[in-house]
Amino acid sequence: MKSKLHSAKNAAAFHHVRESFARQGLMKHLGAELTALGSGECEIRVRHRAELTQQHGYFHGGVTASIADSATGYAAYTMMPADSSVLAVEYKINFVAPAEGSLLIARGRVLRSGRTLKICAADVFVVNGKQEILCATSLSTIMALPGQSDISRPRHRPVK
Amino acid sequence: MKSKLHSAKNAAAFHHVRESFARQGLMKHLGAELTALGSGECEIRVRHRAELTQQHGYFHGGVTASIADSATGYAAYTMMPADSSVLAVEYKINFVAPAEGSLLIARGRVLRSGRTLKICAADVFVVNGKQEILCATSLSTIMALPGQSDISRPRHRPVK
Amino acid sequence: MKSKLHSAKNAAAFHHVRESFARQGLMKHLGAELTALGSGECEIRVRHRAELTQQHGYFHGGVTASIADSATGYAAYTMMPADSSVLAVEYKINFVAPAEGSLLIARGRVLRSGRTLKICAADVFVVNGKQEILCATSLSTIMALPGQSDISRPRHRPVK
Amino acid sequence: MKSKLHSAKNAAAFHHVRESFARQGLMKHLGAELTALGSGECEIRVRHRAELTQQHGYFHGGVTASIADSATGYAAYTMMPADSSVLAVEYKINFVAPAEGSLLIARGRVLRSGRTLKICAADVFVVNGKQEILCATSLSTIMALPGQSDISRPRHRPVK
Repeated sequence: MKSKLHSAKNAAAFHHVRESFARQGLMKHLGAELTALGSGECEIRVRHRAELTQQHGYFHGGVTASIADSATGYAAYTMMPADSSVLAVEYKINFVAPAEGSLLIARGRVLRSGRTLKICAADVFVVNGKQEILCATSLSTIMALPGQSDISRPRHRPVK
Repeated sequence: MKSKLHSAKNAAAFHHVRESFARQGLMKHLGAELTALGSGECEIRVRHRAELTQQHGYFHGGVTASIADSATGYAAYTMMPADSSVLAVEYKINFVAPAEGSLLIARGRVLRSGRTLKICAADVFVVNGKQEILCATSLSTIMALPGQSDISRPRHRPVK
Repeated sequence: MKSKLHSAKNAAAFHHVRESFARQGLMKHLGAELTALGSGECEIRVRHRAELTQQHGYFHGGVTASIADSATGYAAYTMMPADSSVLAVEYKINFVAPAEGSLLIARGRVLRSGRTLKICAADVFVVNGKQEILCATSLSTIMALPGQSDISRPRHRPVK
Repeated sequence: MKSKLHSAKNAAAFHHVRESFARQGLMKHLGAELTALGSGECEIRVRHRAELTQQHGYFHGGVTASIADSATGYAAYTMMPADSSVLAVEYKINFVAPAEGSLLIARGRVLRSGRTLKICAADVFVVNGKQEILCATSLSTIMALPGQSDISRPRHRPVK
């Protein structure tokens, strides 16, 4: 995730992705930020605070999963046209170490881009001092809904 | 999930589970409530509000997954002694319908209770008018950490 | 899985499903049989023999997963037209008890039937004496490929 | 998977892993071979034949999953002492392209090695002409059962 990535400041690239992210009430509520985008890649970060914890004071698995979910969904959405919608069909996540630290970083990427389905993966790292520690890894299936703009709320439920 | 279930008001039953839930900052931040507990069963509910949405205004998959995660974890924790800790190792979640409605209900249950690992499942329903619609289903692996009280924050990272 | 189920002898029902199953070389190689079919339901059985074991002599997880995979795929295929193909996108399987016994039975069912995707689950039981013991449970995503008959081998790779 | 890998001919390294693999009746029945081992790494290969196919003549997903399952399990087992047993708790597999080709190669690796649980991943490639094509990717949880030699069949069922 280096040369191709655009920082979140570069508002021109992947406009439909940034706009969709901005409409996710949950990402704002968690304090999550879209920090980098590339073709088939997306990074999301969130800072630690008491509102995001599980019973030991670490980041809750739900926060880890939420930003992994959005990071894979938006990694996939970078490869879809602006007049389409993106839908997470399913994912699996393994928690490999406690998310104990000050910052959580999810990096999503597309493993295989089919017309209808994008198979994606995300790694989530927790920053503890200077170190980035892998705390979770996920594998997900994302669906493209062509011709259904993400902006207007659909009258009818999208039929998968 | 009928006769055996204790409402959240019955503070005597499963005290260690209720206490642990109360310490999860994220559950409070989402407005989630522990609404029922039984041996190997747990129900969590959360009301819709703008802070919990994805880009179309439905419940975000991260909210769905967060309460499914906690519901399976605490279903497992009802079957562990009070001086143990509970750890989600991994889960998979399938989103089977859009979470469009006013209320989200996660019902977790233990499928198989081993000494170290509990295999659990959750169904998540969205309430739309009078109807409960299945919107997600999950399958998870939960680990018991014996002799590590959930209350005091461990100095050292729990070693799986 | 009661009243609606047709035994494997009832060759009239779900003809395209039976035909497709019969073309799976692996099912024959494992000695697996399609023992029941219903709308959105499928049962597959396989008898124990040394060729199907893991290192302790139990059924190998690969056998368990193979018949769970086919049982969910064909459960989904009962709900698709005969001129379509069926494709397993992904699944997750939890092994909840050792598959120690003389017979393995996978029962697949459709949880939610969308136009393109069918979300399915399977339970796998091992028969040990008179008892059926749950030894694995799975959750899978199955895709319908309309207008691509299952019979003729496609010239080009199906594009998901 | 380069410098550290020992070819299957090097019988001295990881003796307990090779022995356990040799006792898996299913691997022999499929014609699968253990082709490389390293610390936390394992490669398994199987050649195409009619006995291993799904309905279109490609490798059946059950074969793909079986060798991915064994490759992750034995990758984990390289990091366990010889007097322990290895148990697959669960895995998820995504099929990202049809397994159309003459040879299937599963490469398993340990992502995180805890005392009790090893979190592992596998990529499965199909060889079509000269090209290796990624056809599946999996994520799994493997358990170590210390003090239970893999060789003797346990009298009692291993209690997880």
